[in-house]
This record gives sequence, C-alpha cells and structure tokens, in this order.
Amino acid sequence: MRFHNFNGGPAVLPQSVLERVAAEMLDWQSTGMSIMEISHRSKEVAAMSAETQELVRSLLGLGPEWAIAFCQGGASLQFAMLPLNFAGDGGVCDYVNTGLWATKAFEEAKLCGAAPRLAASSQDEAFTYIPREFDFSASPKYIYLCSNNTVRGTRWPAFPAKTPGPLVGDFSSEFMSRPLDLTNFALVFAGAQKNVGPAGLTIVLIRKDFAETGKKGLPHMLDYRTYVENDSMYNTPPVHAIYVANLVFKWLRDTIGGLDKMEALNETKAKTLYDFIDHSSGFYRGTARLDSRSPMNVTYRLSNPELEKPFLEEAKKEGLVGLGGHRSVGGIRASLYNALRLDEVETLVAFMKRFMEKNG
Amino acid sequence: MRFHNFNGGPAVLPQSVLERVAAEMLDWQSTGMSIMEISHRSKEVAAMSAETQELVRSLLGLGPEWAIAFCQGGASLQFAMLPLNFAGDGGVCDYVNTGLWATKAFEEAKLCGAAPRLAASSQDEAFTYIPREFDFSASPKYIYLCSNNTVRGTRWPAFPAKTPGPLVGDFSSEFMSRPLDLTNFALVFAGAQKNVGPAGLTIVLIRKDFAETGKKGLPHMLDYRTYVENDSMYNTPPVHAIYVANLVFKWLRDTIGGLDKMEALNETKAKTLYDFIDHSSGFYRGTARLDSRSPMNVTYRLSNPELEKPFLEEAKKEGLVGLGGHRSVGGIRASLYNALRLDEVETLVAFMKRFMEKNG
Repeated sequence: MRFHNFNGGPAVLPQSVLERVAAEMLDWQSTGMSIMEISHRSKEVAAMSAETQELVRSLLGLGPEWAIAFCQGGASLQFAMLPLNFAGDGGVCDYVNTGLWATKAFEEAKLCGAAPRLAASSQDEAFTYIPREFDFSASPKYIYLCSNNTVRGTRWPAFPAKTPGPLVGDFSSEFMSRPLDLTNFALVFAGAQKNVGPAGLTIVLIRKDFAETGKKGLPHMLDYRTYVENDSMYNTPPVHAIYVANLVFKWLRDTIGGLDKMEALNETKAKTLYDFIDHSSGFYRGTARLDSRSPMNVTYRLSNPELEKPFLEEAKKEGLVGLGGHRSVGGIRASLYNALRLDEVETLVAFMKRFMEKNG
Repeated sequence: MRFHNFNGGPAVLPQSVLERVAAEMLDWQSTGMSIMEISHRSKEVAAMSAETQELVRSLLGLGPEWAIAFCQGGASLQFAMLPLNFAGDGGVCDYVNTGLWATKAFEEAKLCGAAPRLAASSQDEAFTYIPREFDFSASPKYIYLCSNNTVRGTRWPAFPAKTPGPLVGDFSSEFMSRPLDLTNFALVFAGAQKNVGPAGLTIVLIRKDFAETGKKGLPHMLDYRTYVENDSMYNTPPVHAIYVANLVFKWLRDTIGGLDKMEALNETKAKTLYDFIDHSSGFYRGTARLDSRSPMNVTYRLSNPELEKPFLEEAKKEGLVGLGGHRSVGGIRASLYNALRLDEVETLVAFMKRFMEKNG
C-alpha cells in the first residue's frame, strides 16, 4: 500500500518510475544485468548518462555554455567545493542568509580559506521572508543564495536583477519544479532527493567559462573541471541514482509535458493548500511571509500548538505521512514536490478540514 | 534473462537480493514508501543504517575501537581525504605502489599538501607482483597500500607484520570477500561496487583513536570525525546504496554462512579458473606472478593476442559478459566477486576449453 508522502526529502517519486525500476531490476535494457551490476564504462551506461544530461539541458533550455555535472556528497559538499574552487585565497564572497542551509554554506566557506560576508539576512524575522535589499561587495568572487528554503518554507520570488558578481546557488528543493531563469548565474546545484531521484546524486549546472576560472591543483574530486572534462566519469559515478533521475526526467517531459506544465501544476497544488490555510479563521496559520511563500514546502502551525502532535498522529493513521516540520523548528510542513499529486493535496485539505471541525 | 557477469565493477550482485529490492520497491517495510522516498531521519532508515553497521562489525569481527562510516565519492575521494586528515602539513607518508589505483592515491596526496614517498613499488615488472621488501620512513604518518589490484589481478598474500606507522588501505575490490586481519591497520576503505552493492557508497572502517588525530578545521564532508560523530547522518547519506549493502550483508551471513565460508568458496572459484589456465599448455597465460595472484580478478592473455577479440565476442554470445581487461592494459579479466557462482566459473572454463580446442 502506498501512502501520501509529504516528506521534505528524500521525498515522493512518480509511481510509474518506481514500477519501471522494479520491473527492470534484474535485466536492464536486455543487458542481462541490473543497472547496479553493469560497468559505468559500458556503452549502455555511457549513453544513459549522456541522455540524462541532455534531458536536463532540454528541460531547462540550457545553452552550450553550460555543463551538467553529476557529483556526490550532497549540498553539504558543494558548500565546500564552491569556495575551494572560486573564492581564491582570502577572496571575498557574498552570502544571502535565508535560513539553516544558507547559514551552513556560509560557515563552511570559512573552513575553506574564504572570507564570506553577509550581503543580506532574514534572521531578524526567523528566516520567514526573502530579503529585497542587498549590501553587495564591490567585486565579490560570487554571490551565494539558497533559492528555496525547506525549513521555513520560503522561496525567492525573483532573483537580483543586477549583481556585481556571478550568482551561485543551492536549488536543491525546487530544482526541476519550474523553468529557471539563469541570467546572472554561473553555478547551480541540487541534491537529487527532492524532485529528481534518490539521495546520493548532486546535479551541478556550471558555466564552462566559470569552471575554467577555478583554482588549479585541487584534489580531483573537489575540482569542478574534473566532472566537466570527463563527463562525470572520472571515477565510478552513482549510476543507479543517475538512472532513476533519467526516468524521472522522462516522466517530466512525457507524462507532465515539461517544466511550464509542472510549474502550473505545482502552483495549483500550493494554492489549494495555502487557500485553505488562509481561510481557516486562524485555526491554521502559515509561517512564511505572503510574498516569500514556497510552493514546494508549505509550513504552518496550529493556533493551539498542543494540537500539533495529535494532528500528525491522526494524519499518519489516514496515510498522510512526512508532515512534521523540520526538527529545528517543529510545526507542520507539507512538501508538495513534483511527484505529489493534486488529489493528494486535496486529501490533505479534506483531513485538515475534518480535524478543524472536530477540534475548532 | 540473466547473463554471467564477470565485470570488474560495478559488478554482479546476488540475484535473491535484486529480487527483494524489486519486490519492495513501492512499499518498503510497510512504510507505504519506497526506500528512495523515505526520510533518512525516520526511525526505519536510522535502524536500517545502524543494522548495516552492525552487520559489517559482526561479519568482520570488529571491536568497539572501530567506527564504520558511510561516505560518498568513491575511493577517489578517499585518496584525498586520507592525506588531508592525516598527513599533516608536509607530513611524510609512505606509499606502496602496486598499480594504477595506488599510483592515483600517491599522486592525489601531492595535491593535498602531503609529502608522499614510495616505500616499495612493483612498477619494474608492470605491477604483476606484490613487493615483499619495504623501505619505510622512520615515522610515517601512515603507510598506504592497495590490498587487491583489479587491473593487474594481484592481491597481497600477507600484510607487513611490523610497520613504523599505521597501515591504511584501499580494499575496494576484496572487501567482504574473506575475513580481514586488521592488525596494524588504522583505516580501511572500500567502494561498494564490487562485493557490496551499487556505486555511490564508500564504506570506511576507521579506528576511533586514529580519527581523533585528524587535522582540525577541515570542511565537514572531508573530515572523518563528521561521519564517526554523526553515525554517517550529518547530511543525507546514500540511503538506497546502504539498503542494498544491508541486504547483501544478510545474504553473506545467512545464505553463504559468513566470511570464512565466503573465502573458501572464492578460493574454489579462483582455483577452478587458474588451474585450467595453468594446464592449457600456454594457450592461456596468467599475467600475475603465482605468489601474488588475486582470487577476485583473474587476469590472463591468449598466447595469440589476435584471438582475444574473437574470444570476447564469442564469450558474450554465450552470455559470458564483462571479460575484457581494464582499458589501460587490455587482455582478459574474469572478476569472480562474491555473488558470482561457482557454476558460472565452470561455464566460463567450459567455454574456454571449447574455444581452445577450436583455435589451438
């Protein structure tokens, strides 16, 4: 039996993808082997990996100036690779702090010989909004931002239009949920375990000219050029995770119809839930500021916090799982990633309505 | 249809494990979710990960002085993490060079501010043997070795009995193929994609007191303490790969009966193939020296090298795949990892016999 999976990540995947993964587990593409058993240097895996890159390229409309890299180590390793490659020794890089994960990236830069400075922060209001004013350095090596903040449920409504240096960012929790305008961006990374596939794969979009400016002489696995120049095959990549991402991207293209359609669907899902929250006469209360709300992670509280534990327990009994807020903030969080269907959001809203009527 | 998979890695996995992975793909442990969709902070995944550590501990008989870490980035990232953590600035560390992968580890140490030096090398004879004489430093930070060399098909018959510093090593291609005597060792790592599971997981055994001596202030994902202190849950680990490894370890324990039994079986498989090669009147010729032969990777040539291409093509037609030698050396390589059955080795030998009779 399948539950309704509102996990913040790892998160729900399309059921049709899981069914296909199961069906070809013992014999992938008539190779007589599982995708986990076949050489990454085989022509079949090389073609699958190249196709996965092309799917990213075509879904996002990326030009030839972009390289697509398959890394490991999650966003947390990117927090270090970015300054190691691009901050230069003692180089100034600007960070916009919009929450837990941007804070971690900022702190990690200090461990990498960089001199990160805050260009803006929403810590004054517990990271419940995205700043609109920035105090950028004159010539930062890069400007770092986290585009969607899973903990507090905020997302950038728009990215800075003029910047004194290239934008780089953590797009983990909204990657592939909508078309991306990468003007001013030089690097974007995303852990796969939200909208893309299983944990263990990090997709990095990097401008080739930016990669070239990276520090020379880094350990190979920490140098973006290693991935760009070897098509992410310098060593054995996480083949299984790339394969699942490949199937998810095809589902996005063929079943959903592309990122415009995906965005519209995600907006509808989010509106369904936010509208109900906003019309619950305060029984439920969204925690993010209206202009900064994320369609991916809907964070809210109950007016009576003592009802939150029974809310989560009763939801789970009805097959609505993963609704607990991040362990650092508590409350409720409904993550509405790509593979979560609209009817599942409606099921959640119906439950919330019943729960309110019983306890209101 | 399943073929006979002699790949050097990623490599064959037990069919019963693959069948179970397929069967519970849509609903793992009655959670209503796939193992790829469930939070790594859930009690189910935390328990599975802890159980996997315990399986490693009990199969290898490791005492409480050892920590078991789940890393990413393959052996190639370990090549950098080791010197970054333990070489100290300009610290002397000894390397025994037994082939391609040890060479890479040696070169990577130079990129990490270490001063690696060769304590021994078998490059004089194309890495076809394991050295027995060592020129160790007086007090090296560590002594590095690669225990099994997939490219040239050699394995250490025994490890140095007395060493002036802790041994560390790459056990990727023989990890879990036999009991390990870790006397003198402080750290052992292994990419999963040989005997353990899918690519994307690196298992590291590290003495806790050794981890404590590591350099402070490294980026978190490059500091072994991060994994030891957070039970490999500092960030999202490669959950799916750990889960497959968990099932493989249970297969090792329950179906095979432990590492003693596995070793005996692996020795029988290797003997079957080596004996045939050695009695083929020179038609086939093993490339590794007798005292250094690996039971995991049997490397050989045909006396007439022009027959190697048809050999590989005809083998493939009979469902014997992955027999090409490493792209750096060519020839034939039959990898006989744990999950490859004895009857599959016998099938290979029968094919080799027919091929020899036809072309001898």
